[in-house]
Amino acid sequence: MKVFTEYLFFETKKKREYVNITNEVEEIVKKSEIEDGMALVSAMHITAGIYVNDAESGLIQDIDEWLQRLAPEGPDYRHHRTGETNGDAHLKNLLIGHQVILPITKGRLDLGPWQQVYYAEFDGRRRKRIVVKVMGK
Amino acid sequence: MKVFTEYLFFETKKKREYVNITNEVEEIVKKSEIEDGMALVSAMHITAGIYVNDAESGLIQDIDEWLQRLAPEGPDYRHHRTGETNGDAHLKNLLIGHQVILPITKGRLDLGPWQQVYYAEFDGRRRKRIVVKVMGK
Amino acid sequence: MKVFTEYLFFETKKKREYVNITNEVEEIVKKSEIEDGMALVSAMHITAGIYVNDAESGLIQDIDEWLQRLAPEGPDYRHHRTGETNGDAHLKNLLIGHQVILPITKGRLDLGPWQQVYYAEFDGRRRKRIVVKVMGK
Repeated sequence: MKVFTEYLFFETKKKREYVNITNEVEEIVKKSEIEDGMALVSAMHITAGIYVNDAESGLIQDIDEWLQRLAPEGPDYRHHRTGETNGDAHLKNLLIGHQVILPITKGRLDLGPWQQVYYAEFDGRRRKRIVVKVMGK
Repeated sequence: MKVFTEYLFFETKKKREYVNITNEVEEIVKKSEIEDGMALVSAMHITAGIYVNDAESGLIQDIDEWLQRLAPEGPDYRHHRTGETNGDAHLKNLLIGHQVILPITKGRLDLGPWQQVYYAEFDGRRRKRIVVKVMGK
Repeated sequence: MKVFTEYLFFETKKKREYVNITNEVEEIVKKSEIEDGMALVSAMHITAGIYVNDAESGLIQDIDEWLQRLAPEGPDYRHHRTGETNGDAHLKNLLIGHQVILPITKGRLDLGPWQQVYYAEFDGRRRKRIVVKVMGK
């Protein structure tokens, strides 16, 4: 049994940004030399998410608008009494989820044809990281 | 350490449908002969979900109405400029999640008494599949 | 390869309550003597969730209000025809998710500085449990 771990770092230019990380995760899986198993891809922050969906720019805008509608920015979160202004980013993180587990078969990510892995930044313009942990044989 | 993989296929009659797959997953766990570990159950499409909840028909209708309310069908998604009409199905997938990890103890799914595993189809009437990957010893 | 399993029990005083379980999970990881791997933390009920976010009391109230807004209590769920009154708790469970997988590196939970693990009770005042299953080497 093997376990292999790497971290990926991000510093987005915009507050909210959606970054396709499928190739980076695939590279880590190759380096792990694990043929059969699973890869955990997990944000290490509470204002960023990880999700699997389509690499279609219109849909990515739809997702962003939808997150804004269900978890809106605003000055009225109790959390802001601490001096923070990112209450919405915490709720967006909870809505989209902060992690996925990707199956690995024959040394490759075992994804459907349209499945792409995304890092979703909700409070960017600062250095953040995710952990990728591959486990299997 | 053992890893065991199978795929399940679906072709629902309706656009949206909720299919109890607990027995099918339990069968795969038995075949794997894994006594202690975890089973990843993950949709390989971006318009279908996997979730764990109650096998109660009224609640399933409640879930469907709730998903329709929070991620409504409609002609106004940017994604539809590509010719697609299933923007809502992508958002429903993100809301409900596309995968679960089920604990396995003594060779069985280690679920609570009411926990049932569901395949949630949001853009059906075509052949789709999920992966079940069991890992453990 | 090692697998280690423990259960945690809860009986909250309030209907909805958010319990920080990070230390309890960390203790289980230590007991497992697993240095490198993953810990599944999963509710065994369909009206309780597990999530990772901030241990800030204002934010926890924000999360509770947000869940009430998106998955409101009310008498009009079809599920209530069975005699139940907790339709909202099922939807809150689906929204926040019922499980997380925590990476373990060097024998410790490999979390970011603000990441705390929470048990989210949506239908409390009764005995409930979660499973923690640690897998790795």
